[in-house]
Amino acid sequence: MERYETLSMEALEQEYQSVVAALSAWRDRGVKLNMARGKPSAAQLDTVSGLLTVLNSAEQCKVDGMDARNYGELAGLPCARKLWAELLGCRPEETFVGGNASLTLMHTVISIAYCNGLLNSEKPWCKLDQIKFLCPAPGYDRHFAITKSFGVEMITIPMTDEGPDMDMVEELVKDPTVKGIWCVPKYSNPDGIVYSETVIRRLASMKPAAPDFLIMWDNAYCIHEFDGPFVEFPDIISLCREAGNPNMVVEFASTSKITFPGAGISVLATSVEQLAHLMKYLGVQMISADKLNQLRHVLYLKDKATTLEVARRHGDILRPKFRMVLDIMERELAPRGLGTWRKPTGGYFVSYYGPDGTAKRALELCAQTGVVMTGAGATYPYGKDPHDSNVRIAPSLPPVEELEQAMEIFCLCVRQAALEKLMK
Amino acid sequence: MERYETLSMEALEQEYQSVVAALSAWRDRGVKLNMARGKPSAAQLDTVSGLLTVLNSAEQCKVDGMDARNYGELAGLPCARKLWAELLGCRPEETFVGGNASLTLMHTVISIAYCNGLLNSEKPWCKLDQIKFLCPAPGYDRHFAITKSFGVEMITIPMTDEGPDMDMVEELVKDPTVKGIWCVPKYSNPDGIVYSETVIRRLASMKPAAPDFLIMWDNAYCIHEFDGPFVEFPDIISLCREAGNPNMVVEFASTSKITFPGAGISVLATSVEQLAHLMKYLGVQMISADKLNQLRHVLYLKDKATTLEVARRHGDILRPKFRMVLDIMERELAPRGLGTWRKPTGGYFVSYYGPDGTAKRALELCAQTGVVMTGAGATYPYGKDPHDSNVRIAPSLPPVEELEQAMEIFCLCVRQAALEKLMK
Repeated sequence: MERYETLSMEALEQEYQSVVAALSAWRDRGVKLNMARGKPSAAQLDTVSGLLTVLNSAEQCKVDGMDARNYGELAGLPCARKLWAELLGCRPEETFVGGNASLTLMHTVISIAYCNGLLNSEKPWCKLDQIKFLCPAPGYDRHFAITKSFGVEMITIPMTDEGPDMDMVEELVKDPTVKGIWCVPKYSNPDGIVYSETVIRRLASMKPAAPDFLIMWDNAYCIHEFDGPFVEFPDIISLCREAGNPNMVVEFASTSKITFPGAGISVLATSVEQLAHLMKYLGVQMISADKLNQLRHVLYLKDKATTLEVARRHGDILRPKFRMVLDIMERELAPRGLGTWRKPTGGYFVSYYGPDGTAKRALELCAQTGVVMTGAGATYPYGKDPHDSNVRIAPSLPPVEELEQAMEIFCLCVRQAALEKLMK
Repeated sequence: MERYETLSMEALEQEYQSVVAALSAWRDRGVKLNMARGKPSAAQLDTVSGLLTVLNSAEQCKVDGMDARNYGELAGLPCARKLWAELLGCRPEETFVGGNASLTLMHTVISIAYCNGLLNSEKPWCKLDQIKFLCPAPGYDRHFAITKSFGVEMITIPMTDEGPDMDMVEELVKDPTVKGIWCVPKYSNPDGIVYSETVIRRLASMKPAAPDFLIMWDNAYCIHEFDGPFVEFPDIISLCREAGNPNMVVEFASTSKITFPGAGISVLATSVEQLAHLMKYLGVQMISADKLNQLRHVLYLKDKATTLEVARRHGDILRPKFRMVLDIMERELAPRGLGTWRKPTGGYFVSYYGPDGTAKRALELCAQTGVVMTGAGATYPYGKDPHDSNVRIAPSLPPVEELEQAMEIFCLCVRQAALEKLMK
């Protein structure tokens, strides 16, 4: 195998014929494979079936001096706040335990900022002519969808191996219309980058022009190692407090990929002052999130050690899948000089960077061959990848054997797209 | 016993001394009683403990062609949509099944209107100089808190025995800045009024000036009879459709007072077109609500007949409490000519109207004697009861014997407040 860039036109033509034939053969087999979303597999969900039966009597519902079945306790069950604080390294009084989706909590915080304002806002954001948000990219499409839905202008920030390009971030926050930044600090979606301590401290120490600048700290993969042991991670809330920015960050996490994706519990964590402010508005829209599901999770996950055990069971199922993806790319794409990728040890994605201008075409070919992937561009604000290069691969859902087929097809599609470009 | 208005000053003074002495005796006993909120009692919650164990295996989670444990299905489990449609008399495709709080769904709809606009909105409401909402009152304080939090101007609409004063409503909707109306159509909070079919048809047939006028139809007590059999109720969605206003109403309900208040499931129902519009924005803030709790409810509540059976168990516990409240008021207040009230057969409240200018004082005395009630004025927009007359009594939470004590004290406080006013 040789690098495509070194091939003669004749050799390219030959390679093209062979790739087209191989893909055509796959098409004849009529496969239907899905690597679009970071959905846990049924095998993972089966490892936490105990959650279904752990809460089974009215007596258990008397907890923390209240009846968890009834109304009340806006911030969530104290025992659930304690568990989250232990997992995130913050204080229980800094947490608010929500329903089944941290995404909803993120939307709620932006919505409060937009409709009512944050603790240090001069006005609600909807009363301002312009609001901008920094979007390290590639990033999570659902984050960008939230800011977009409020008419926020999104500015793409390139990612480095240590996190967002901080020189650029520090420069941009001098603009008072820049109101915040989206961050997935541990095993970033989709690159799997763990922000370095230097980057985290620079983020916590920023002095943005906007008094209500907001770091949206989506710690989605806080305990989601699949290769190697749990990696301790700095508590952003302490760091912001120590840097004199106590109200600048709101952190989010959930058990969506620890217990059940559709039926987990979520958390929001921030300074006690910012939380008190947010709760004035949270109290208008809810009496509390589902406390019985919070209790179910506390009874099942118990403490940090037990929760890490549960997370390890997921990691054991995910590890061979990620290895399979990386091995096939190493075998099929690396020797041909087709693209680059990192080797994540946690999170839910492999982020592939193909030759410029080939991602859309490669995924179009995938779709035609029965393999559904996250849409090209989805990992960038407005769905626009400036290089048409990045593809988010989600290996978690399919069984290993299907994943192998899907990756074989993906690599063929990448090759065909690259060949088409080289032969143009 | 004589009507206070007929008493001589001397008789009033005597009566006053005796009431003050009785309240002082209660104060010495140091009671602590709460009739502030429509919270179901522990005895009610104990009747639905089966809900805790009905979903107990991974196999059960495969339902409606999907794995309810995993991500997906924004509008909720089809079987849950079907159950709600049966309960409300609408079509499954008109429903969206939410999390544990219909209040959150209501807030979300107003928030979408404010930030993005409804199906027929010319602009998002936040871009308009003025928005007004019609608030039949006395009404539900949490409704008013939602509209207030978005800076909406609230206009009080008097209630009649058949529902809101429709002459006034029809006149006011000619103003294009009037964007909606809050309704609790069956066993209204707090009066327990069931809207008449005439009122409902007039509401459904309105031709408001605002193209995006919104009826917020909070059918909170749709199957919540405690005295007598289930009362069939018109489907507002059909009526609006038939009147040529298909997108004018959004209906809400929940199982908060059928299963567990903190851990039930909720529903939003509207036209298929309005729902598709709302779901564009709902899809930005969630992947779906908790489908396992939806499934738990479907397995437990099964169908309308079974759900009505469950509701009847609550009614059996509530009935003696409501009778106790009404009996004591009949005995202590009616002969003294102190106030008026209706006799609800469903819902969660008794709404007491005392002599003008006495409600605040009566509740202050209650609080001093250890009885917590919903704050005076809470049932009116901005917390301002123009007559300082209405008190919402919530008999559901305390056991019957405590309720009896609380009502004895309440009647003494009403008497003292009335006497103070007469003697001034």
